Amino acid sequence: MSTTEVKPSPSPDAAAVEEMARVAATWCAMHGLVVGDRANPRSGTVPGVGLVHAPISLLPSRLPESFWEQACELAPIFNELVDRVSLDGDFLQDSLSKTRQVDDFTSRLLDIHRKMMDANKEESIRLGLHRSDYMLDSETNSLLQIELNTISVSFPGLCSLVTELHRNLINQYGNLLSLDAKRVPGNEASRQFAGALARACDEFNVDSAVVMMIVQSEERNMKTLSEVEAEGQVLPDGTLVVDGRKVAVVYFRAGYTPNDYPSEREWSARLLMEESSAVKCPSISYHLVGTKKIQQELAKPNVLERFLENKEEIANLRQCFAGLWSLDDEDVVKSAMDNPDLFVLKPQREGGGNNIYGLDVREALIRLKKEGGDALSAYILMQRIFPKESLANLVRGGVFHEALTVSELGIYGAYLRNKDKVIINDKCGYLMRTKVSSSDEGGVAAGFAVLDSLYLTEK
Amino acid sequence: MSTTEVKPSPSPDAAAVEEMARVAATWCAMHGLVVGDRANPRSGTVPGVGLVHAPISLLPSRLPESFWEQACELAPIFNELVDRVSLDGDFLQDSLSKTRQVDDFTSRLLDIHRKMMDANKEESIRLGLHRSDYMLDSETNSLLQIELNTISVSFPGLCSLVTELHRNLINQYGNLLSLDAKRVPGNEASRQFAGALARACDEFNVDSAVVMMIVQSEERNMKTLSEVEAEGQVLPDGTLVVDGRKVAVVYFRAGYTPNDYPSEREWSARLLMEESSAVKCPSISYHLVGTKKIQQELAKPNVLERFLENKEEIANLRQCFAGLWSLDDEDVVKSAMDNPDLFVLKPQREGGGNNIYGLDVREALIRLKKEGGDALSAYILMQRIFPKESLANLVRGGVFHEALTVSELGIYGAYLRNKDKVIINDKCGYLMRTKVSSSDEGGVAAGFAVLDSLYLTEK
Repeated sequence: MSTTEVKPSPSPDAAAVEEMARVAATWCAMHGLVVGDRANPRSGTVPGVGLVHAPISLLPSRLPESFWEQACELAPIFNELVDRVSLDGDFLQDSLSKTRQVDDFTSRLLDIHRKMMDANKEESIRLGLHRSDYMLDSETNSLLQIELNTISVSFPGLCSLVTELHRNLINQYGNLLSLDAKRVPGNEASRQFAGALARACDEFNVDSAVVMMIVQSEERNMKTLSEVEAEGQVLPDGTLVVDGRKVAVVYFRAGYTPNDYPSEREWSARLLMEESSAVKCPSISYHLVGTKKIQQELAKPNVLERFLENKEEIANLRQCFAGLWSLDDEDVVKSAMDNPDLFVLKPQREGGGNNIYGLDVREALIRLKKEGGDALSAYILMQRIFPKESLANLVRGGVFHEALTVSELGIYGAYLRNKDKVIINDKCGYLMRTKVSSSDEGGVAAGFAVLDSLYLTEK
Repeated sequence: MSTTEVKPSPSPDAAAVEEMARVAATWCAMHGLVVGDRANPRSGTVPGVGLVHAPISLLPSRLPESFWEQACELAPIFNELVDRVSLDGDFLQDSLSKTRQVDDFTSRLLDIHRKMMDANKEESIRLGLHRSDYMLDSETNSLLQIELNTISVSFPGLCSLVTELHRNLINQYGNLLSLDAKRVPGNEASRQFAGALARACDEFNVDSAVVMMIVQSEERNMKTLSEVEAEGQVLPDGTLVVDGRKVAVVYFRAGYTPNDYPSEREWSARLLMEESSAVKCPSISYHLVGTKKIQQELAKPNVLERFLENKEEIANLRQCFAGLWSLDDEDVVKSAMDNPDLFVLKPQREGGGNNIYGLDVREALIRLKKEGGDALSAYILMQRIFPKESLANLVRGGVFHEALTVSELGIYGAYLRNKDKVIINDKCGYLMRTKVSSSDEGGVAAGFAVLDSLYLTEK
């Protein structure tokens, strides 16, 4: 059902590709576009050791400019939407009430959220650093949202470097490739995120208060949840103090998975921070807005209208939502039994995985209908996305492979509001990830993913 | 005889040093301050693979500001001196006549040089990218020149990064260290060198002519000597053409060691380039000026006066020359027999090594005097330098060691002249290399060297 589109640019010959791959890998080494090499046992333990260039696409992946513009225009609307939804505590609690029954982690987040609601806790400074991920669906030729991330969004640093690398390669091999570096959009994600954190710190406006980063393992100038539990307190005026330093902003680079909460201590730390006046990036409510269940709720008819006024913005958001239906919609269930390939059956539990595809969808629906009741409500049906495929050269470990790939585009967004004043509401660069398509029958493992950038083609 | 000076700054505790070493190694990985890891068999073969942070000094090494200023002021004078000496072909041929008898490599260079003299070959555009290396002698408390490099001077890229790293560490740990990042001098060596190469290309003023880099192994946009031999020609108007491209500037990153000339083909290529009108960096005569023998000749009485007029400049140069004497100076030979520790006995052959120190100096002198004649002229006596030692933390492979170290300071210089017009005559940043002193009795191997930067102390 998917269509394979071979890149239309004149293919440079194998020797030129090999040379470019060598130049690219060397550029990575010289510009910090490196990762730990899993083959090296000291890598990840000893800093600065066992490094290898990041897995990359040799050249940027093509995307019609109109889709790029669409995704960019959506970024500030999603920023705004997250903020609006976060204000409606009952909506969050109600929407997630069923998830809470099957998912301990969400349940604990909801407990903290409920405590804040009960205490009428107000967050006057609100900082969101988000990323909305999309794929280009070849069935409908439309950009569809995969997910909206509101906590600890990754790769703002490396993705800026990939853009720079690709522009450099195009400048060096321009004649050979018939490409124009100006068509690779600029990418300042890390600079813009750092700017938003600094600005939030300014807005907090307490002398010598700092940005505290929450991380998974102990590192300099950063704290684990367990360290915050041991060393942190909230003063009577609400100020969060850790190790004697006043905290203006808590930036979570951990805390988004159950693994980060091995004991009650970590949950205490999370609550402590939430109770304080420090700016949380994200607050517990921003965090909850990023759950898949809320994404599904927002896709239901008339839900966006509860949070946004501008009809055009609502229409733009809805355009990127894949179809989502609960199993009490009998027409859709029938349609899915007839054309199971066009749907994905997803468990309601947070955390991903266990999705059902193809003929298994029909079988599962028959079984669930027999069981009825709660069994039906544990699943939803979703429009299946058929991402556009293209041939790309992937470089890993200094070696390149040509493979059939699909790409996912993430647009970073930053939002900062102090009381009624919106200080930042911007898109902040992008992340392009390209992976070997499951339809690839070559020697490269399906799912093997690389960092990439964008090449904008005519609308 | 040497004095050990422990750094006077308050020592941060071991935990802080370990943390800083971790931060430093991570910074290196993120900013391209990396080298190939010899323990990894793919490193050096596959690009971007098997990387490890460069061996570094954790903090910059101290140097009184007056010595720094002295070294900087010498750079343009040395640039000028190289150019003046290069114009005196007879001086080069005569001074190296004895070296030619014992050193094949220098002999081949002199052959090419003689051919250019015989052909009255003129170099109207002259580009020099040099580095003058110094050590601080603790015996005389003076800065003494170790050598002047005029071909393929190394590390202009990495040394700029080390400066940046050290400034960053001082900014992060300023309170702990009582150091001020402003006292680490800026270092733009690679940018300035690239600028000088580009400017030379402009002066050459031939449409679409390029800078060609000569390297040891085949790489993109670069040429080995053997490739130049196969693909290069000189047109009747003198233009060097390689692979159909006109060459404005030949930048030698190879060709300075006999190993780079495994056959006659490489020598043909060297001659071909020298015969062309392309700007050579360096020309054969600049290359010869950088030999140790010429350095020794220039240190003799009344020799500098042949090339420079300004008495103050001559005095400044002479101040940094270590004493150099031929073995026909009987007073000096007697003095060396009495105090052999203050001298080094050096063979005249180019290429380094086989120096004689300590009591061996006395024994060797007795033997040489017995043999007399040619045996005596094969050696020279040099003032022995006792570099100032200090404790430093060296970081290698993500691990730090404290060790007693000595440092060598190199000042880069760029010189560009087109006929009578001097276009560039600048100092261009610096290289600080620190190595474990032979007096170190700790666990770190003597001679183990790291990249470093400078911390300027009061005059």
